[in-house]
Amino acid sequence: MRSKTGLVTLLTDFGTQDEYVGVVKGVIATVNPNLQVIDLTHQIPPQDIEQARFCLMNAYPYFPEDTVHIAVVDPGVGSQRRAIAVQLESGFLVAPDNGLLSGVIGQNKVVGAVELTNSDYWHLKRPSNTFHARDIFAPVGAHLASGVNLKQLGKQIDLTSLVELDLPQYIVTDTAIQGCIQYIDRFGNLISNIPQKCLEEKNILVKVKELKLKVSNTYNDVNIGEVVALVGSHGWIEIAVNSGNAALNLNMKLGSTLELIEVNEPDR
Amino acid sequence: MRSKTGLVTLLTDFGTQDEYVGVVKGVIATVNPNLQVIDLTHQIPPQDIEQARFCLMNAYPYFPEDTVHIAVVDPGVGSQRRAIAVQLESGFLVAPDNGLLSGVIGQNKVVGAVELTNSDYWHLKRPSNTFHARDIFAPVGAHLASGVNLKQLGKQIDLTSLVELDLPQYIVTDTAIQGCIQYIDRFGNLISNIPQKCLEEKNILVKVKELKLKVSNTYNDVNIGEVVALVGSHGWIEIAVNSGNAALNLNMKLGSTLELIEVNEPDR
Amino acid sequence: MRSKTGLVTLLTDFGTQDEYVGVVKGVIATVNPNLQVIDLTHQIPPQDIEQARFCLMNAYPYFPEDTVHIAVVDPGVGSQRRAIAVQLESGFLVAPDNGLLSGVIGQNKVVGAVELTNSDYWHLKRPSNTFHARDIFAPVGAHLASGVNLKQLGKQIDLTSLVELDLPQYIVTDTAIQGCIQYIDRFGNLISNIPQKCLEEKNILVKVKELKLKVSNTYNDVNIGEVVALVGSHGWIEIAVNSGNAALNLNMKLGSTLELIEVNEPDR
Repeated sequence: MRSKTGLVTLLTDFGTQDEYVGVVKGVIATVNPNLQVIDLTHQIPPQDIEQARFCLMNAYPYFPEDTVHIAVVDPGVGSQRRAIAVQLESGFLVAPDNGLLSGVIGQNKVVGAVELTNSDYWHLKRPSNTFHARDIFAPVGAHLASGVNLKQLGKQIDLTSLVELDLPQYIVTDTAIQGCIQYIDRFGNLISNIPQKCLEEKNILVKVKELKLKVSNTYNDVNIGEVVALVGSHGWIEIAVNSGNAALNLNMKLGSTLELIEVNEPDR
Repeated sequence: MRSKTGLVTLLTDFGTQDEYVGVVKGVIATVNPNLQVIDLTHQIPPQDIEQARFCLMNAYPYFPEDTVHIAVVDPGVGSQRRAIAVQLESGFLVAPDNGLLSGVIGQNKVVGAVELTNSDYWHLKRPSNTFHARDIFAPVGAHLASGVNLKQLGKQIDLTSLVELDLPQYIVTDTAIQGCIQYIDRFGNLISNIPQKCLEEKNILVKVKELKLKVSNTYNDVNIGEVVALVGSHGWIEIAVNSGNAALNLNMKLGSTLELIEVNEPDR
Repeated sequence: MRSKTGLVTLLTDFGTQDEYVGVVKGVIATVNPNLQVIDLTHQIPPQDIEQARFCLMNAYPYFPEDTVHIAVVDPGVGSQRRAIAVQLESGFLVAPDNGLLSGVIGQNKVVGAVELTNSDYWHLKRPSNTFHARDIFAPVGAHLASGVNLKQLGKQIDLTSLVELDLPQYIVTDTAIQGCIQYIDRFGNLISNIPQKCLEEKNILVKVKELKLKVSNTYNDVNIGEVVALVGSHGWIEIAVNSGNAALNLNMKLGSTLELIEVNEPDR
């Protein structure tokens, strides 16, 4: 099966102050100037595979079928970690095998996976040891988006061998669902690891620090400056401040805890 | 009348650290992969409708006819504020009806406007309450840029009902024109709300804090590190420091005042 | 000779918080909506010609032949500094004549150069004095990428008259090669001005502050948090910290010195 869209996305921790992202796009244009490239983000904190995993997982469903997603947060560049490409039912992934892809893979059916061992599709036969995005991932992704078959890119690998991230899961107890903040966005919105489906019980309140919040529909269900709990656009329970910054206001960080509790009393 | 350029611009306060802008582009590419998307900026301070209004107004004249400008700074997302599309003589605007568009609309002839009530052109029939850029504005803008007629997008609205921002205007007195700083750019240049046409009098000086400055032609008309007044590229009177940062040097902020005064004495 | 790729890159110090880069792209799309535009970076520190020179030099080799590179870091805008276009064997450059291009020009064969005196290819017949990227460089670059001949853009200039940057060079002594840090990237990697070819001697150590480091192949040749010297992806000797920030850890800045020394003792 082949990609036919000619659409490539990029997600990295390269930032935009250096020429690195531009160079990656130059390599893609050298392989095929007719590809379209969309930036997911290049502002992943350096070496933060978990944040990259979260962003890619949430962006993936909004792209056309057969899009090729190149994702490079790669603290192990040049070491023995594998460079891989994965084919899903609805798209392709190209990345280091370090767990970055485990979010998307957990939510989509995998068709096949290869290690990128065929240097015919690399930019340089002898890649650098520090910039595989430029030398391997980008040209391989560009070839994939141009119609090259996954199998041509290298040797097939066992799906069970793919590296997975060991992330905190939410816990269901008799009295509560306990989760934590897995992402904080630009607005300071606190995105938990508890999905929308956990709200099916009636009279659920979200307990965060000293607050017990009912689940609202919009940021504007509370006054400006007040804390609100809702289901964010990602589909996760989220804590926000209307026109404000919840992370700063509540002094919460990645990993801070929150709970869903069922109450029989009337909502506060 | 229809758009034929296939060109879409984006202006938001989403920043670029999260995957939000990428997702918006994924939705656009899903509607029509042949559209070209140009970022105006995504660094509008969160919820700052006034800054968004200023950037869009200044960028608009430099785009091809029929460009579709999608602008989303939307503190009222999910509330009763309307989502609208506006057709001008030379282009299209898609945005929340919160005053963001009032700068462009004040400088261009409006042909028509609709509220985005036709969910056939939305990404999801049941949009989220927190991310209308993804679910409504982006897909509607993409359809518009693909040739869908404005009228198909929803019910026509009365132009007099559009929300306007109530911004400080410059004041003409017997002895001076009094204005204020309406925008500070990346370089720390202080851009006032006084337009070039106010300079038609001879012997005008710009009074800012203790300084009285004649109007120069270029940053280099003064020495490096010195304060200069000139007509900026936007067409507004601007205070800058040659190779420096006027906002920091003069300790001025948004809303800080300046004056144009006519003098009979020779220029200092 | 003409450009046929339709590919344009942009490198500026405009940042991305204002609409400036968007406006430049609007002007390019107005000249020719079929051009493809790639951002190298817009985060060059304001007026920092040296950093721009470094980024452009390192990005240039990774783009298709005939790409048009528009580079604008232009503290002299509106003064007598020349606006120029340069044709190389493998591409085109459009920039102010202030030394920004001297890195690329030093590494590639120049075919010809012109001063941009022909206002037929400008955006406005009377350009602003503060935004030549919009009014001159972008439209000229767009015309060049659309097939206009270099000679049509203005009067030919003597290559020896081009402004060069006077940058610190590495020095070879009897006992060492002395260089300095010429660039610090997003990761805090310290990139020196000593090229890979200086490593041909055996038993070279890199001396930086109190450390003497052998030259490693990858960041992962040392433990996480440790300092490593290697040849970076640019081809320059580089000091890094595995999964850390060398600039912060070592308290080094642009211009900080380092040395290559030959040792007869066994490597530490």
